[in-house]
Amino acid sequence: MARFIKKRNQAIGKAPGSLIHIGKQKMDKSRVRYIKYNEDEITEGELDNYGSLKKLVGKEYVTWVNIDGLHDIELMKTIKESFDIQALTMEDILNTDQRPIIIESENHLVIILKVLFFNEEQSLQAEQISFILGENYLLTIQERVGNHFEPVRERIRNKSGKIRSRKADYIQYALIDTLIDSYLNNIEKLGSKIESQEEVILKQHTKQLAEILYKQKVEISFIRKLIRPVKEIVLKMVKCESSLMHSETLRYWKDLEDLTLQAIDSVEIYHTMISDQFNLYQTNISNRVNDVMKVLTIFASIFIPLTFIAGIYGTNFDYVPELHFKYGYFIMLGVMVLVAVGMLMYFKRKGWL
Amino acid sequence: MARFIKKRNQAIGKAPGSLIHIGKQKMDKSRVRYIKYNEDEITEGELDNYGSLKKLVGKEYVTWVNIDGLHDIELMKTIKESFDIQALTMEDILNTDQRPIIIESENHLVIILKVLFFNEEQSLQAEQISFILGENYLLTIQERVGNHFEPVRERIRNKSGKIRSRKADYIQYALIDTLIDSYLNNIEKLGSKIESQEEVILKQHTKQLAEILYKQKVEISFIRKLIRPVKEIVLKMVKCESSLMHSETLRYWKDLEDLTLQAIDSVEIYHTMISDQFNLYQTNISNRVNDVMKVLTIFASIFIPLTFIAGIYGTNFDYVPELHFKYGYFIMLGVMVLVAVGMLMYFKRKGWL
Amino acid sequence: MARFIKKRNQAIGKAPGSLIHIGKQKMDKSRVRYIKYNEDEITEGELDNYGSLKKLVGKEYVTWVNIDGLHDIELMKTIKESFDIQALTMEDILNTDQRPIIIESENHLVIILKVLFFNEEQSLQAEQISFILGENYLLTIQERVGNHFEPVRERIRNKSGKIRSRKADYIQYALIDTLIDSYLNNIEKLGSKIESQEEVILKQHTKQLAEILYKQKVEISFIRKLIRPVKEIVLKMVKCESSLMHSETLRYWKDLEDLTLQAIDSVEIYHTMISDQFNLYQTNISNRVNDVMKVLTIFASIFIPLTFIAGIYGTNFDYVPELHFKYGYFIMLGVMVLVAVGMLMYFKRKGWL
Amino acid sequence: MARFIKKRNQAIGKAPGSLIHIGKQKMDKSRVRYIKYNEDEITEGELDNYGSLKKLVGKEYVTWVNIDGLHDIELMKTIKESFDIQALTMEDILNTDQRPIIIESENHLVIILKVLFFNEEQSLQAEQISFILGENYLLTIQERVGNHFEPVRERIRNKSGKIRSRKADYIQYALIDTLIDSYLNNIEKLGSKIESQEEVILKQHTKQLAEILYKQKVEISFIRKLIRPVKEIVLKMVKCESSLMHSETLRYWKDLEDLTLQAIDSVEIYHTMISDQFNLYQTNISNRVNDVMKVLTIFASIFIPLTFIAGIYGTNFDYVPELHFKYGYFIMLGVMVLVAVGMLMYFKRKGWL
Amino acid sequence: MARFIKKRNQAIGKAPGSLIHIGKQKMDKSRVRYIKYNEDEITEGELDNYGSLKKLVGKEYVTWVNIDGLHDIELMKTIKESFDIQALTMEDILNTDQRPIIIESENHLVIILKVLFFNEEQSLQAEQISFILGENYLLTIQERVGNHFEPVRERIRNKSGKIRSRKADYIQYALIDTLIDSYLNNIEKLGSKIESQEEVILKQHTKQLAEILYKQKVEISFIRKLIRPVKEIVLKMVKCESSLMHSETLRYWKDLEDLTLQAIDSVEIYHTMISDQFNLYQTNISNRVNDVMKVLTIFASIFIPLTFIAGIYGTNFDYVPELHFKYGYFIMLGVMVLVAVGMLMYFKRKGWL
Repeated sequence: MARFIKKRNQAIGKAPGSLIHIGKQKMDKSRVRYIKYNEDEITEGELDNYGSLKKLVGKEYVTWVNIDGLHDIELMKTIKESFDIQALTMEDILNTDQRPIIIESENHLVIILKVLFFNEEQSLQAEQISFILGENYLLTIQERVGNHFEPVRERIRNKSGKIRSRKADYIQYALIDTLIDSYLNNIEKLGSKIESQEEVILKQHTKQLAEILYKQKVEISFIRKLIRPVKEIVLKMVKCESSLMHSETLRYWKDLEDLTLQAIDSVEIYHTMISDQFNLYQTNISNRVNDVMKVLTIFASIFIPLTFIAGIYGTNFDYVPELHFKYGYFIMLGVMVLVAVGMLMYFKRKGWL
Repeated sequence: MARFIKKRNQAIGKAPGSLIHIGKQKMDKSRVRYIKYNEDEITEGELDNYGSLKKLVGKEYVTWVNIDGLHDIELMKTIKESFDIQALTMEDILNTDQRPIIIESENHLVIILKVLFFNEEQSLQAEQISFILGENYLLTIQERVGNHFEPVRERIRNKSGKIRSRKADYIQYALIDTLIDSYLNNIEKLGSKIESQEEVILKQHTKQLAEILYKQKVEISFIRKLIRPVKEIVLKMVKCESSLMHSETLRYWKDLEDLTLQAIDSVEIYHTMISDQFNLYQTNISNRVNDVMKVLTIFASIFIPLTFIAGIYGTNFDYVPELHFKYGYFIMLGVMVLVAVGMLMYFKRKGWL
Repeated sequence: MARFIKKRNQAIGKAPGSLIHIGKQKMDKSRVRYIKYNEDEITEGELDNYGSLKKLVGKEYVTWVNIDGLHDIELMKTIKESFDIQALTMEDILNTDQRPIIIESENHLVIILKVLFFNEEQSLQAEQISFILGENYLLTIQERVGNHFEPVRERIRNKSGKIRSRKADYIQYALIDTLIDSYLNNIEKLGSKIESQEEVILKQHTKQLAEILYKQKVEISFIRKLIRPVKEIVLKMVKCESSLMHSETLRYWKDLEDLTLQAIDSVEIYHTMISDQFNLYQTNISNRVNDVMKVLTIFASIFIPLTFIAGIYGTNFDYVPELHFKYGYFIMLGVMVLVAVGMLMYFKRKGWL
Repeated sequence: MARFIKKRNQAIGKAPGSLIHIGKQKMDKSRVRYIKYNEDEITEGELDNYGSLKKLVGKEYVTWVNIDGLHDIELMKTIKESFDIQALTMEDILNTDQRPIIIESENHLVIILKVLFFNEEQSLQAEQISFILGENYLLTIQERVGNHFEPVRERIRNKSGKIRSRKADYIQYALIDTLIDSYLNNIEKLGSKIESQEEVILKQHTKQLAEILYKQKVEISFIRKLIRPVKEIVLKMVKCESSLMHSETLRYWKDLEDLTLQAIDSVEIYHTMISDQFNLYQTNISNRVNDVMKVLTIFASIFIPLTFIAGIYGTNFDYVPELHFKYGYFIMLGVMVLVAVGMLMYFKRKGWL
Repeated sequence: MARFIKKRNQAIGKAPGSLIHIGKQKMDKSRVRYIKYNEDEITEGELDNYGSLKKLVGKEYVTWVNIDGLHDIELMKTIKESFDIQALTMEDILNTDQRPIIIESENHLVIILKVLFFNEEQSLQAEQISFILGENYLLTIQERVGNHFEPVRERIRNKSGKIRSRKADYIQYALIDTLIDSYLNNIEKLGSKIESQEEVILKQHTKQLAEILYKQKVEISFIRKLIRPVKEIVLKMVKCESSLMHSETLRYWKDLEDLTLQAIDSVEIYHTMISDQFNLYQTNISNRVNDVMKVLTIFASIFIPLTFIAGIYGTNFDYVPELHFKYGYFIMLGVMVLVAVGMLMYFKRKGWL
């Protein structure tokens, strides 16, 4: 139910570093895929026997192991032990309500991020992806099988760019670049909806609009919450002095910093834009109330006095002299026309017609 | 009455360091419980004779003394003297309106925090818990008997995790971890109410909603006020250089920092979310006023002119030619239908029907 | 008239350091009282002859001279010369529109603060109090005779706490502590009014409420303006390296820092709380307009059509067949009941009843 | 038209440092007045022949040259060359849309500020004044002849205070002090209007009030825009290490810092106060709409049903039994009274009466 | 559609540093113009054969090459190779959704900025301009042929100012100066519209006004988004230590810093001014609703009771004594006048007339 913070009941009072998966299980069986490559060779495969995980890593090539599914505690233990990851770090990886974070240790550089996507109901969702960078290898752990990383896999296969001649820190950068592009992409989708609905707000009037604007504001808040810690991470990476990061990769991170600032700028703009649209919408309601009131006032103010006049001559008094005037009826009609015209002129002068 | 600041009258002009309990007494008699343990042994007990307090502490084991109830000034004096605590610090511990704070001295590291819970009326309440960390011992002082610490007690009893092999600073961390989890937990409870009431605001209309939204906003402000100083404390602890803190414990505090930031992020989001819901609620009222006005305007604008026409032919003038037309009555009815249809078409074109 | 800034006309273009009292004279004659004490002895008295001021100070005891009334320029000159105070500092002391400030010089540490109190019209007022701390003496200068300092005077007389064994910097702390307690106290008074009026806003509706809320917001702004520079002063004092401040006193100032932050937190909370209450109040007005509209709409929409029907059969056409039906009148009444019931059901379905 | 930013078209693409006066010419002919003085002597005069400007300056006295009028490019060139001022600095002095700024160079310390005054239409205006401080001399350049500096001139003539024994940096301080006093003075004027109109908002209702509040908010924004850079300048001056500034003058600048902070505090308070008053005004409108609606509803809801009853007995059916009851008419009147009283009680219970 | 962020789909997953033009192609064929000059000579020309680009640069003169059009990937490759520009930098230049940025490398100082202009529909648009500063040369790359730089070209041709005797960093400054002037210029255009429409809001009432205010707010947000990173760039340039920047040029950049702050100040002021105008507009709507309501209430409250009275005497009861009074009709008219006058006096006292 609560999208912005998740149930932590299960973790309260537990010893820190316990391997508990906090979050919904999103697939049946974990899947372990790997790519081993250097400039000349490339091997791809899928593991069934987790015991052989550690053997995938070697000095002469870069190994990228991608794990889909967090719930298989046995697998998580194997990873923890094979790659010598600290208990607390492993706990953060398993907790899908984890705030984006960067953890540096002697052997690893762990980055935990969220990928952003619209689900089938067109509502924004985030899923956690963890990157464990070690000497010669990169582990990526996702909540379920996703295709966010396919373009990078293709680049490795096709030797496009310099990806095959770089170290593991470069694929880490390349993958995080795709994540941040997914932020920009989704902000753009949302933003282009927001920018284009100006017309609708000005022209049409539906109650659904209030709901739509409110929901968009929630989406923007959602992106905002996710993107702020990403900025912190990217800023830390730009200044990172870990031996696992090569200086040429740092330059690419500077580029990510720029993309992130761009994303934050846009989120802020759309945030105020929606508030302004809400304001505009409210003003339009007021304008409509005003219009409705004017119509009522004009009708009522013209016909109520006329009805009154007619009422006077509908009385049954014994002696009402006007009733016996020869043109009494026509004089009354004439007076009524005069009153009506007078009222119309009055409303015209007031600018209500 | 005032939940956000408490009566200080009793303290004005008093010499600083006076042992006065500022706040409501919440239980009859103070209760003093202790656990002494090392990796191999564990002793639990309850003290009646406060004089023996100091003797509970020894080099070969860790002692955790938990005191429930602040109002027993005699007990407080014994604590002050037994553990050599400064008068000003003791004053802060006794003042339950104390802002969360961290006090470092030569022999102690005192942290004063609030635990957060919903009371029976489902309104958020905070109670103060003080942690006095010394060499080999930890004192915790609460306003009344609570069960916040039970899970940690269980972990000590069951030797779960590394708790039995660590020093007193680790239990301190473990206990504060449960407090911060209580923050997240309560934010989650409140947040999931807030997120799920969107539907109610959009569909139903009750005046109670304004009250509910207002009260939720007050609750959020309440959490916000409590959580900000907690962040300062956690940040200070992460950089703490006291010899009472062991370096491995610092890593756990980094984890708390992360939880606290997570909590603050969520509080901010729910804060703006409630404001937005309030806005949505107000817009809905305006929309409803508009609807009511339209119904009135349509009825009045159609029937007032018709009544006027009927009124004309209800006059008693001697000579009203139409009254004597053969089909006068039916012509009038026909004209009335035309007027009504014309009005309906006009309102249709305006989009009011 | 202007409570937030005062007339400065009289000072424009004057040479800096001129001894002009900017502000309203609040008493007839200045009053000079002193207490001289050390651990063993204590002398209290009142001076008529200002010439002997300087002689009150001596090395073996602490002298606290309290001056009530700023307008006696002769007295001010004597103080300036006796204690060798700089012209600019003296000017600040005399200007009661002075922002709270701290001035360090070789021989003195001058702190200018405001004391906060509710006047007879229950509106918050501030008066300036200056503290001139020298070697072995403290001068306090107030706008008029006040009883803010009485509790401290009592403590000196009664030797309560360590006040008699400390230096002049300690009384300075003790006095400023009472001032900051007065802030907290007044915030608490205002805050408890604000918190308790929630019910009133929800239940009753009076126009006075808008006025009350507005005035409370002004009061909060007033406290806010005063308290912010106090925080700056306290922060500076905590880090003060003047030889006039003894290290043990600094610890007490840390406690004041904490009180000040507490006060600022509360002020901010009450500030947003009042805005939220205003919002709630406005929403209630809208709800009431909506209610009023509904009553009108229901009455008008039911009876206007019925009146129209009656109007039709009030016409005097020669031939209105229904008029001659045997049960014409009762059929009309029946139709009217049907219409009314239909309307009521329609409004029921709309949720207006 | 645009008060907050001025036309720059004429400057686009020009080489920097061109001597163009950006702004409106405000007087016919520039006027050059000077005062030369030391402790013993004083000479005042007015220059026609600009060539002799440089000769006014000498080591044994302080020279203050005041130039009124910026448009005489010939004069400006003479100044630039005589006192060796950089082209860019001169450009800033001539551009009256210049943001307040401080420019330090080897020989000069140039401060450009705005003086604030209400024009005849009671709208706030700013005019630029530049201060060029050199060794032994001060040039002040204004847009037109003003009397802001008259009090300082008087103090020089009368030897009041220490002004005659100080260097040129002291007159610079003294003059800027009068400018900042003009800020405080005008804030006070505006503020006392704002504070006193609370009553008007609460009691009366005029549409002009919205306009007045809006205009006051614009004035406050105008002061705010001007005063912020002044603070930056004063802060820089307090830390200024130029050899042209003597250490004793720095102390006076600290005093100006204080005045500026005072001004900024007040501006912020009045800014929120006006927003709150606007809010109050809007709430009052809603309250009035509510009142108007209630009157309408009460009248309509009472008389429309009564008219309906009368309408029933105005029908011309052949057989309406009540019409022939002996006291039919009086029974009808009685029923009407009952209905009216019932309605009144209903409205009373709702609290509308 | 989305003006604040642009489609990035095409770039996702691509290797960084790929030369892809992100953005709309705005012209058919790229155009390469150059000016070579030193103090004595000047050559201007246009290149068709891109191979000779590199040869344009020489030690004895400054070369400024201006390229219009980003889509010619062949040309971009030639530039990249001729001037040895890094792949990532080149990617940023080609991505027209790039945030303004400054990139320092060993051989170049690259600044990417936006120029601001109103398009034919009077809506603000931004186009990207990149400045590549090298030893002795400056490359400027624009999205299409623009005339922003014409004034600087003229200054070079005419030897106006010192432009011909300076290095390439000076033309870079001069060109960026024209861009920032374009910001100020457009803010001034927008601002003078905003300031002058106050009158319209106060006097007239059109629904279009809400739309206009909303659109102006969007424009202001647009400028705001663009100008903030410009400030960062200018601040970095002021502190730039690249050997490509000569110290005398730095002084000009300080001037740009000032202009940028001026622009930001104004943007902020106009931002709040529009919000205030929106507020004023909404208040005016409320005032108008109030006016309309009053007219309705006055008419209805006067005539509905009168019609009721007439209705009573229109009933056909056998015995209605008043009907047979001699002056019954005139008494009724008199009562009606009394009622009407009473109502009018009541409304007058309420201040509604």
